[in-house]
Amino acid sequence: MIGDIDSKMRSKGIDGIVVFGDTTLADPDLSYVAGGVLPRGGTYFKKLGRPPLLVVSNLDYGSARRAGKVTRIQTLTQWGYEKLLKRFEDRSDAFPHLISQILRAEGVRGKVVLFGRNDVAKGLRLAERLGRLGVKVVGQQSPTVLEAARDRKDGKELEELRKVGAKTARVVNEVGRRRATVGLIKFMIASKLARENLIAPEGTIFAVGPSGADPHNAGVDAAEIKKGRLIVFDIFPQAQSGYWSDLTRSFVVGRADARARKLFETVRDAQVSSVDYLRAGITGEAAMELSCDIIERAGYRTVREIFQGKTKSLSTGFIHSLGHGVGLTIGESPYLSLSSRDSLRSGEVVTVEPGIYIPGYGGVRIEDTVAVRTRGVENLTKVEKELELN
Amino acid sequence: MIGDIDSKMRSKGIDGIVVFGDTTLADPDLSYVAGGVLPRGGTYFKKLGRPPLLVVSNLDYGSARRAGKVTRIQTLTQWGYEKLLKRFEDRSDAFPHLISQILRAEGVRGKVVLFGRNDVAKGLRLAERLGRLGVKVVGQQSPTVLEAARDRKDGKELEELRKVGAKTARVVNEVGRRRATVGLIKFMIASKLARENLIAPEGTIFAVGPSGADPHNAGVDAAEIKKGRLIVFDIFPQAQSGYWSDLTRSFVVGRADARARKLFETVRDAQVSSVDYLRAGITGEAAMELSCDIIERAGYRTVREIFQGKTKSLSTGFIHSLGHGVGLTIGESPYLSLSSRDSLRSGEVVTVEPGIYIPGYGGVRIEDTVAVRTRGVENLTKVEKELELN
Repeated sequence: MIGDIDSKMRSKGIDGIVVFGDTTLADPDLSYVAGGVLPRGGTYFKKLGRPPLLVVSNLDYGSARRAGKVTRIQTLTQWGYEKLLKRFEDRSDAFPHLISQILRAEGVRGKVVLFGRNDVAKGLRLAERLGRLGVKVVGQQSPTVLEAARDRKDGKELEELRKVGAKTARVVNEVGRRRATVGLIKFMIASKLARENLIAPEGTIFAVGPSGADPHNAGVDAAEIKKGRLIVFDIFPQAQSGYWSDLTRSFVVGRADARARKLFETVRDAQVSSVDYLRAGITGEAAMELSCDIIERAGYRTVREIFQGKTKSLSTGFIHSLGHGVGLTIGESPYLSLSSRDSLRSGEVVTVEPGIYIPGYGGVRIEDTVAVRTRGVENLTKVEKELELN
Repeated sequence: MIGDIDSKMRSKGIDGIVVFGDTTLADPDLSYVAGGVLPRGGTYFKKLGRPPLLVVSNLDYGSARRAGKVTRIQTLTQWGYEKLLKRFEDRSDAFPHLISQILRAEGVRGKVVLFGRNDVAKGLRLAERLGRLGVKVVGQQSPTVLEAARDRKDGKELEELRKVGAKTARVVNEVGRRRATVGLIKFMIASKLARENLIAPEGTIFAVGPSGADPHNAGVDAAEIKKGRLIVFDIFPQAQSGYWSDLTRSFVVGRADARARKLFETVRDAQVSSVDYLRAGITGEAAMELSCDIIERAGYRTVREIFQGKTKSLSTGFIHSLGHGVGLTIGESPYLSLSSRDSLRSGEVVTVEPGIYIPGYGGVRIEDTVAVRTRGVENLTKVEKELELN
């Protein structure tokens, strides 16, 4: 939560943080600290124990006010940025001077961490220039101060996540029962997402038969939805607030044969058992182990074999991890996997998405997005898990 | 163009580049070198003078093949990444070892630049760890090797940009003539974008009357579109290929008064004159000066006053720059502005978007996306510039 930033900074010995970027689009840290959309980005300064400062272009002053999370907002012009641009040949020389000036004015003297999704090559150059100007820039490993703050969602954030979950469910419930080509279904999905004011910048997966055996195959537009074929429908839209939802259902139109039924029931058992098992204190690794247990007991292979050194690679069975955090990104900590060191905390929001894949035949994956509570979870995905649609 | 990478590396004394990230979403460098979407990202290695290598998770091997730009594709498992994850406590320790191993195997011995939109804090830590492992990581200022390669678009890229331009124009032509509230218009726009398979991850600006005087005010959903009020309609969608289009029109429904007409005609004159003026060899600064000349001659103020030191800030008149590059991002070099050092080259694609803003009254901005040619430009935006819609 945003109020955690000071304590996280203190525990890591950090005196100041700077979050910068040319856009809040796909920059979860910058949109988190600003509280909304800055069309041309901005730079956020936080001295330990003091209220933050947001510096934006003249153009984005109004956007920064509307985003509303930071009360101290100033413009680049107030900091003489145009003069710096005239003094130096290049923006990449003027910008470090601006940053060091503002850090000095804010009283930052100790270690500084730079945030924001930016070109690593340019970030390194900025850090080097800041070093020459006397700023003590240090790197950070995951979870960074901001990732740690973002992990647990506050009431307003959970409300956003609930909303995008409900809208996504509405789209899925309406689309699930139609028959057509994949291309037509995808067009319907896109229209319904638009009506809900959601976007799907990474697309939607609607994979029929063998293409469903590749977890990231988005499906072939020209493919027809034949009766009895397994379909993997994975939808991951984002609301204008920046928050995401992640939902997968697998089903057949018409009657399923015994092979499809066993796949489906095994995955549903693993998924429902894992959701039931989750609560604050459970480790991401233990949740994954539970799904592996259930899937192996049914006779399918899992990635545990790779971790046990029994095989080098695996293309059949449960070949990915159980889940990941969801918030201002569609993939963040905590992770539910065999290599995860995360222990779940109340307020974290994660996916639970076991799957089994049979090359040449098809796949089944079932996924909900859930909010972790002290006792159990709040399931943000309210869509039935049925094998046969008629 | 992608073939320029070797010569740019050579001229900057770089022996290897690494492009990495957890997603190609909003990562123009990673999607550029991969040639398409990698749902969970990947790592691209390029030794000077040798064909590149793309390393992805087992899951994304199919996606990498479909993206199709790199022929040498390998998986993390082939490089023993699971073992590295077991050997080290943390992913952020295993990853530097993986990178240094592959760089060694590819024969990279000299300077290495890291690319990809990633948390700066984590990028700095990766660079530091790589340094300990003997990799010579250096920063870069703009334009980086990849930005320089991306500037000029090849035939396939121009074809994508033409397509997204044509689709965007179709949406605008259909929406422009309706009357409703802003919210209803925006819903219609979103539906039509969905039909064209376009997304607008940064939203759409449809600002009526005084809200149009703030260039980044997206418009108020509840506002009614009253006759005679100036409307700024700025739409910037992205195609699934990753390429963008940027288009602004300003108009009134019904009859315009003399004040609106003078604003509109001045901006249109500046815009059309600047488009006509552009060709390879023209500087971004000269194009901006031409628009300022025309707008000042009509009696409006421009940002030139700030650059001349006559004022510290400006909220009326032509208060932003003339344009920017468009490609896999919606804002990149070259820039058409008073501080630009860019000289236009054939194959670059830029916006031309002068605007005049009158606080409390409204604004006019007109914008096309154009491809720079040796003689003139190819205008990718085929939408009329009319003041009055009836």
